[in-house]
Amino acid sequence: MHIQFLGTGAGMPSKQRNTSSLALKLLEERGSFWLFDCGEATQHRMLHTTLKPRKLEKVFITHLHGDHIFGLPGMLGSRGFLGGSGRLDLYGPKGLREWIDVTLRISRTHLNYELVVHEVEEGTVFEDESFIVRALSLDHVVPCFGYRVEQKPLPGKLLMDRVSRAGVPKGPLLRKLKEGRDVTLGDGTLVKSGDVTGPPQPGFTVAILGDTRFTANAVELAQDADVVVHEATFDRESAHLAGPYGHSTIVDAAKTAHLAGARSLVANHISARFLPEDAEHLAAEAAEVFSPVEIAEDFAEYEWKNGVLRRIN
Amino acid sequence: MHIQFLGTGAGMPSKQRNTSSLALKLLEERGSFWLFDCGEATQHRMLHTTLKPRKLEKVFITHLHGDHIFGLPGMLGSRGFLGGSGRLDLYGPKGLREWIDVTLRISRTHLNYELVVHEVEEGTVFEDESFIVRALSLDHVVPCFGYRVEQKPLPGKLLMDRVSRAGVPKGPLLRKLKEGRDVTLGDGTLVKSGDVTGPPQPGFTVAILGDTRFTANAVELAQDADVVVHEATFDRESAHLAGPYGHSTIVDAAKTAHLAGARSLVANHISARFLPEDAEHLAAEAAEVFSPVEIAEDFAEYEWKNGVLRRIN
Ligand SMILES: [Zn+2]
Ligand SMILES: [Zn+2]
Repeated sequence: MHIQFLGTGAGMPSKQRNTSSLALKLLEERGSFWLFDCGEATQHRMLHTTLKPRKLEKVFITHLHGDHIFGLPGMLGSRGFLGGSGRLDLYGPKGLREWIDVTLRISRTHLNYELVVHEVEEGTVFEDESFIVRALSLDHVVPCFGYRVEQKPLPGKLLMDRVSRAGVPKGPLLRKLKEGRDVTLGDGTLVKSGDVTGPPQPGFTVAILGDTRFTANAVELAQDADVVVHEATFDRESAHLAGPYGHSTIVDAAKTAHLAGARSLVANHISARFLPEDAEHLAAEAAEVFSPVEIAEDFAEYEWKNGVLRRIN
Repeated sequence: MHIQFLGTGAGMPSKQRNTSSLALKLLEERGSFWLFDCGEATQHRMLHTTLKPRKLEKVFITHLHGDHIFGLPGMLGSRGFLGGSGRLDLYGPKGLREWIDVTLRISRTHLNYELVVHEVEEGTVFEDESFIVRALSLDHVVPCFGYRVEQKPLPGKLLMDRVSRAGVPKGPLLRKLKEGRDVTLGDGTLVKSGDVTGPPQPGFTVAILGDTRFTANAVELAQDADVVVHEATFDRESAHLAGPYGHSTIVDAAKTAHLAGARSLVANHISARFLPEDAEHLAAEAAEVFSPVEIAEDFAEYEWKNGVLRRIN
């Protein structure tokens, strides 16, 4: 699982930070990626990455402010032009369907794939055999959701000593056992998957939160998460603006991660008042409450592997 | 008068060319600039120019395809954030008002300035004491307009030998005479502006055309124009695509400029099939029919001065 940030700014684009969007890259897990929010020029950012719009499987919108959605219509159109023919699922607050319908109609954008718009309420918004996504309301100036993405437990590792003791030959039978299926050997012996594999491996959990004041629902979504992505529009000095504008400080983000017992925090939605050199100062304010913390940058890519979040790009 | 191109591509953004937008810079003439079309990320392009969104006075939309309008909502919002408090006039085909209304409502974008949307029909769409803008329908796959911007004649130049013979002292009286007003000297002598100025100076005329097949209305809009901006999605080799998709070749653009007796041509809306090094080949095809011709590039800026179009950026 990788997370790549496409826009980490607040409100308006600047030269350093675009409006909100991040890609949850599930290329190994499901051969696709998901977007969380899609500010204007998200598709332009993508031109400078390895992300292919045709591999976009789902888009989750936290709220309907322009800096989180104005890149959607262009993305939907370009995905079709660029060979995306599979179904696309779009999740977001009430109002999203009307806007998409009117925009596609007025601009005469004819999609050559199936688009399904889900207007989200609190609870499970998506589930299949390998993932579950839950949403809870946050505390912004308009209806806004945070999302918790859980990968379901993976089959246990093959225990090679037991496999060879059971006389399983190398090849496809091993893969079946690894996937949790029992197999019968050439000599009629039944080998049970459970006897030659370790305990199920836990999947990862990522909480991706929209714009919000400090709120208990954010803590709940982030509970024991491996990675929490939380907005941090302000710092201590500008904290008095957080309440009126419905936003968080970097310390609020750190408090949320700390109370949730999360493993790592990436702060995004950084106000243009902060220059690139202020990242250190923001990280220091967070570190008094929680670590490890990263201050997201546009194009930054993180890998979650073996329990550790590592910046790879 | 300057023209700066912000997006010169066709259909989708590429690394070289953004979707359609150009700025008609009237800073000397009226202290503002006008936009023609506003594809996604036009405001992002503007971040890398000297254009200030608060000086945006009018936006003319040729047609409602996404690559010509998806940057509008973000531009409208940012203009307010960046101190634009004067009225903004938006001109375009029927459907534009509904889309803007729904988009601003759903995204809860509250503009702190007056926005007036004009749904355009053929004829004069704007006129004041110094400019007149006319629109005619073009021949695209959806309703599409071309615009002809005429600057009205300017007062004649002061004839300095006549002024000094009449005994006018240097200072504010000279400015009044230049502006066409008669003045009375200290000794009671009346000096008529008409007696000390040359004939009115012609203003400039620019035709900015939207997506279109070769059509007589484009020739009419471009009649005797100083600058014609015309789409050129295809070349001779790909000409068979122009009809079905409702577009022009570079030769169609040149034919239009030639038949109109225009003074210069800038071709834009260049398909991503053409690489930067193909500009020469496109210009050569045009030059068989009309010159001078320029192939627009993103960020290229042209100045029209003393009857000559010159690239300055
Ligand atoms: Zn926001
Ligand atoms: Zn177009």
